Amino acid sequence: MVSTDIEHLIGLLAKLPGLGPRSARRAVLYLIKRRESLGTPLIKAMADAIDNIKTCSECGNLDTTDPCRLCADPERDRSVICVVEDVADLWALERARVFKGRYHVLGGILSALDGVGPDDLNIPGLIERAGNGGVKEVILATSATVDGQTTAHYLADRLAGTDVMVTELAHGVPVGGELDYLDDGTLGAAIKARRPV
Amino acid sequence: MVSTDIEHLIGLLAKLPGLGPRSARRAVLYLIKRRESLGTPLIKAMADAIDNIKTCSECGNLDTTDPCRLCADPERDRSVICVVEDVADLWALERARVFKGRYHVLGGILSALDGVGPDDLNIPGLIERAGNGGVKEVILATSATVDGQTTAHYLADRLAGTDVMVTELAHGVPVGGELDYLDDGTLGAAIKARRPV
Repeated sequence: MVSTDIEHLIGLLAKLPGLGPRSARRAVLYLIKRRESLGTPLIKAMADAIDNIKTCSECGNLDTTDPCRLCADPERDRSVICVVEDVADLWALERARVFKGRYHVLGGILSALDGVGPDDLNIPGLIERAGNGGVKEVILATSATVDGQTTAHYLADRLAGTDVMVTELAHGVPVGGELDYLDDGTLGAAIKARRPV
Repeated sequence: MVSTDIEHLIGLLAKLPGLGPRSARRAVLYLIKRRESLGTPLIKAMADAIDNIKTCSECGNLDTTDPCRLCADPERDRSVICVVEDVADLWALERARVFKGRYHVLGGILSALDGVGPDDLNIPGLIERAGNGGVKEVILATSATVDGQTTAHYLADRLAGTDVMVTELAHGVPVGGELDYLDDGTLGAAIKARRPV
């Protein structure tokens, strides 16, 4: 006997990643109790984001401008492109403040299981950008999963004909990680890539 | 270098219970990628809920009508009132389909720590409803926590002057619960309230 308005809202909110029906119910009650302070601003922020956010035609990032601010920034190194699966990965790298080049967002990874092939990803754009001159290095920053590494190998093959250097992220023990809790694959990679102190 | 529109939306979404900054970021990307199928309907559903949902002046439930559909339903037993802390608890009882009377939502529980006193809760409304004649039983369905039980005792005292019977939910082993994992308090309550088979 919950109101259909509320049920409808709960159903939509529960579709968001990280929210199930139970947490969606709690979120809806929280929202309705805080109409002025949270509900109305949240509606406006969502509408603004949906209206204003575009996909950058150059790198695939999301921003209010096209090209995005990262592509438009003259301070950023145009000779290095870091290839990521998703905008979330781009954000993660930007939060770490360790990369000052430009990005290329694939929009997914190759996956036989999910039926994602090379034509479903933004790969032609990458090949074109890499061949445009001026680009010296392409860093393949896909996930260290089977699909992520398959995608990286495929991209390395496709880029082999160009002059750019193709690199990948280092694998090893995460900073702060305890050896005891690491999987064999990570430990193997860390031993293989060991370095003199 | 994330767009401020996106950052603002992430900040607001992260205020919802059950969502932190990381899950709010994932939710925002998910929303922006599904503007048509999820983003726009979600905005409309939120606006509808915020515009249309009222608090029932009789029981404190949330619904599009006042009195709410539960209070307006002639099929529901008007002689029993089940007192709950919050609308979420009312929904939980309605999902269980075990109670056919009416509700009273307190809007919280007494809490010395949080500074919630009797005047902050919808207690006068309950006393008035209980004294209106026609009501034979008030079930105190507050949480089995210290604050919940304090609230229940306070309400039982306040209702002692009226003719209504005051009851509380049974305590014991949850259905499907394994004894091994239960706390001493629950086991103690279950032993104390043991029944002939």
